[in-house]
Amino acid sequence: MNPHIKDIQPSAIRVINDKKRPDAIDLGMGQPKLHPESGPFFPAMSWMQRFGCPYSPNAGFPDLRAAIAQHFAYPGLNAPENVCVTIGSQEALYLPIKSLLDPAQDEVLVVTPTFPAYQKLCHLEGVRVKEAPLSPETGFAPDADLVLSCVTEHTRLVALASPCNPTGRVWPEAELRKLAEGLLRLPRPPYLLSDEVYAELYFTPKRPFSPAWVYPHTLVASSLSKSCALTGLRLGWLLAHLADMPALIKAHQLVVSCADTLAQRVAIETFRKPQLLAAHRPHYLAQRQVLLEELVLAGLDFVPPEGSFYCLLKLPEPWTKRSMKFAMKLMDEQNVVTIPSAVFGIEGFLRLTFVSRPEALREGIRRIAQALKTPPT
Amino acid sequence: MNPHIKDIQPSAIRVINDKKRPDAIDLGMGQPKLHPESGPFFPAMSWMQRFGCPYSPNAGFPDLRAAIAQHFAYPGLNAPENVCVTIGSQEALYLPIKSLLDPAQDEVLVVTPTFPAYQKLCHLEGVRVKEAPLSPETGFAPDADLVLSCVTEHTRLVALASPCNPTGRVWPEAELRKLAEGLLRLPRPPYLLSDEVYAELYFTPKRPFSPAWVYPHTLVASSLSKSCALTGLRLGWLLAHLADMPALIKAHQLVVSCADTLAQRVAIETFRKPQLLAAHRPHYLAQRQVLLEELVLAGLDFVPPEGSFYCLLKLPEPWTKRSMKFAMKLMDEQNVVTIPSAVFGIEGFLRLTFVSRPEALREGIRRIAQALKTPPT
Repeated sequence: MNPHIKDIQPSAIRVINDKKRPDAIDLGMGQPKLHPESGPFFPAMSWMQRFGCPYSPNAGFPDLRAAIAQHFAYPGLNAPENVCVTIGSQEALYLPIKSLLDPAQDEVLVVTPTFPAYQKLCHLEGVRVKEAPLSPETGFAPDADLVLSCVTEHTRLVALASPCNPTGRVWPEAELRKLAEGLLRLPRPPYLLSDEVYAELYFTPKRPFSPAWVYPHTLVASSLSKSCALTGLRLGWLLAHLADMPALIKAHQLVVSCADTLAQRVAIETFRKPQLLAAHRPHYLAQRQVLLEELVLAGLDFVPPEGSFYCLLKLPEPWTKRSMKFAMKLMDEQNVVTIPSAVFGIEGFLRLTFVSRPEALREGIRRIAQALKTPPT
Repeated sequence: MNPHIKDIQPSAIRVINDKKRPDAIDLGMGQPKLHPESGPFFPAMSWMQRFGCPYSPNAGFPDLRAAIAQHFAYPGLNAPENVCVTIGSQEALYLPIKSLLDPAQDEVLVVTPTFPAYQKLCHLEGVRVKEAPLSPETGFAPDADLVLSCVTEHTRLVALASPCNPTGRVWPEAELRKLAEGLLRLPRPPYLLSDEVYAELYFTPKRPFSPAWVYPHTLVASSLSKSCALTGLRLGWLLAHLADMPALIKAHQLVVSCADTLAQRVAIETFRKPQLLAAHRPHYLAQRQVLLEELVLAGLDFVPPEGSFYCLLKLPEPWTKRSMKFAMKLMDEQNVVTIPSAVFGIEGFLRLTFVSRPEALREGIRRIAQALKTPPT
C-alpha cells in the first residue's frame, strides 16, 4: 500500500453522516437541499442528442473555458487557456498540490480552521504542511499578519478559503491586500490557492474580494456545487497562469482524462445566464436569519457567518474541549447531526449548516440547547 | 513543479488529434462516432428533477455498485462493496497504481504494446515500470510464459488489457489460466490489473475471458465509454477485493469526491437493460469487415483484430522504423489521421481505428496505399 494513504483518516464528516438516522435533524453535511435549476439541463441534453457524448478536450470545452475566464475576468487569469475544467472543486484543489509542488522541498501553509481537504491532499502527495491558525478569540477573523508570520523559506503554496468552511468568515479586501503585499516582499512569492467555492453565498454588503485581483501568483478553485445546488454534477474549475497550465493539465489528463461532457454543457448554459450563479443567495440569507434568531433566542454564542452556509456555535463548559463527545451525545440523545470542530482541528465549536428547512433549523437549535442543559455522562 | 510530472510527455495521440484538419479522414483517435442510446438519459433526468443533484456516497450509489457487481459476477468481486464508481476507466486505472503500491519498493509490469496510460500513471506516482513486450512476429499474440519471464521479486502489479488497444488481440482463456497459475506460484502473487474497457467489443466466437475468473488477485477496470459511445460521460468502475477498498476509496475521495450523480443514474438505467452494453457490437463487427476487406484489396498486411475498434497495419519498407514520419506524411499529403505505433513504444505499425463511416474507411485505406507508393523525402 502507498504509505501516504495508510496514514490518512477517512473523512470524519462522511463517517458522521453515515451514522445519521433517516429521521434525524441534519445540520451536518454541507449539501444543498434545494434542487438545481433544471433550465440548463434541457439544452445540454439537446446538444448531446445532436452531437453524441464525446470526450471534451482534456482541459474542457473551449466555449466553457472562455465563459469561465470572462465571467471572473481576474487579471492574468482571463483567457480561456487559464482555465482547466475539473471534477468539482475537489480536483481543482488536488491539481496544484499534485503538480506544482516538489514534495522533496516545498511546504504548504494552510490557513485554519478550514475544511481539511488541503492538508489531506498534501498528506496524499507527501508534501509537508504547516498551519496558520486564526484565533478563536476573534471569531477566526482573517489576519494577514498571522499568515505572513507563519510563512517559511519552504512555503511554496498558501491555501485559504473565503468565504470559509467552517467559520463562515470572509477575507476583507484590505486584509487580502496586506497579505498580497507581504507575500510579494518574499524572495520567492508562493502560490496563493484561493478556494472560492462559496463565493456566491455571501451576506456581506459586497461580494467577497478575491486575492486574484491583487496577487499575481493566485490560483482560483471553484465549482457550481454549492452556489447552484449541483454538488453531484462534479463540475469545477481551476484558474491558473499559463506557465503552470501544462503541468496541471498533464495531471488532470492522467487521472481523469476530462470532465463530463454533459456536465460541461450544463455549465455552459449556466454561464450564459450568470444570474443563475447567484440565484440561491436570497434563500441562504433567509435561512441564516432563521438560524441566528433561534441561536439568539436560545442564548447561545456563535460566530456570525459572513458567507457559506455554515455557522460555528460556541460550546459552553463543560464541552469546550469535547466537541466530538458532544456531537455524539446530540446524535444519540437528540437525533441531531452536527459536525464537531475537532474535525477541523480545533476545539470548542460545533459546525451547523443552514441548508435544512426552517422548522428543522429551529427544532435542531432547541434540541442542542436541551442537550447543553444535561451534563456529560 | 512535481519532478515526476516534468518528465511525462503530453499524450501524443491528443497532439496528433489536435493537428487534424476539419476535412480529414480520421482513423486516429478511438472515439466512437455512434451516438449513445438516449433511453437511459430520460429516467436519469426524471430522477434528478425528483431528488436534485446531490453527492453520491464516495464509492458510488449503492444500487449502481450492486448492479455492476451482479452483472459481472466475478468470484470475490461480486458484492456491491467490491465496486468503486470512477471518472471513466482512466481513474479506475489510476486508483490502484496510486493507492496499492509503495513507490519505494514496488514495481509494475505492463504487457506491451498497449495504450500508454499504465506506464504514465506509474511515472506520475514515481513507481518503477517494467515492460513485457509481446512479439510483433506473432502479431502480438498473448503469451503467458513471456509475461511470467518478466516478473521480478519487486513486481507488485501486472497490467494487461484484453481486448487490447492497439493490437486488437484478446487473451485466450487457456493463456490466462496459464498466467494465473504461474503468478500463483510466486512467493507473493502480484495484483493483476485487467483493463476490460473493450470487453463488449469482441469478434471472437466467445466473450473475452477475464482473469478475474481464475486469478484471485485481479482488479478489473472498465467503463461505459467504448461499449456505449459514452466517452464523455466519464463513468467507469474499479472492481477490487474488500481488503483493498478502503485505500482505493480514500484516494478516490480525496481526488474527485465521487462520480457524477447524473452519469451514475444513466449507468443504473443501462445496467437495468444490459443488452445496451452489447448493442454496438454488430456495428463494429460490420465496420471491421469493411476495413479488413479494403486492406486485403490494397494488398496491405495487418494484425486481424479480435476485439476493440483498432487494427494494426504493418508498415512495409522503407517505413518499418519510421511510423511517426509516415503518419505525418499521411496527414500532410493525404489528409488521413492515423496513430503511429511509436506512440505505443514499438516500430513498424500504424494504428487504424474503424469507428468512422465505411466510405471514410475505404477512402482512408486507398490513400494510405497511395502514400506507401511514394518514397520518403
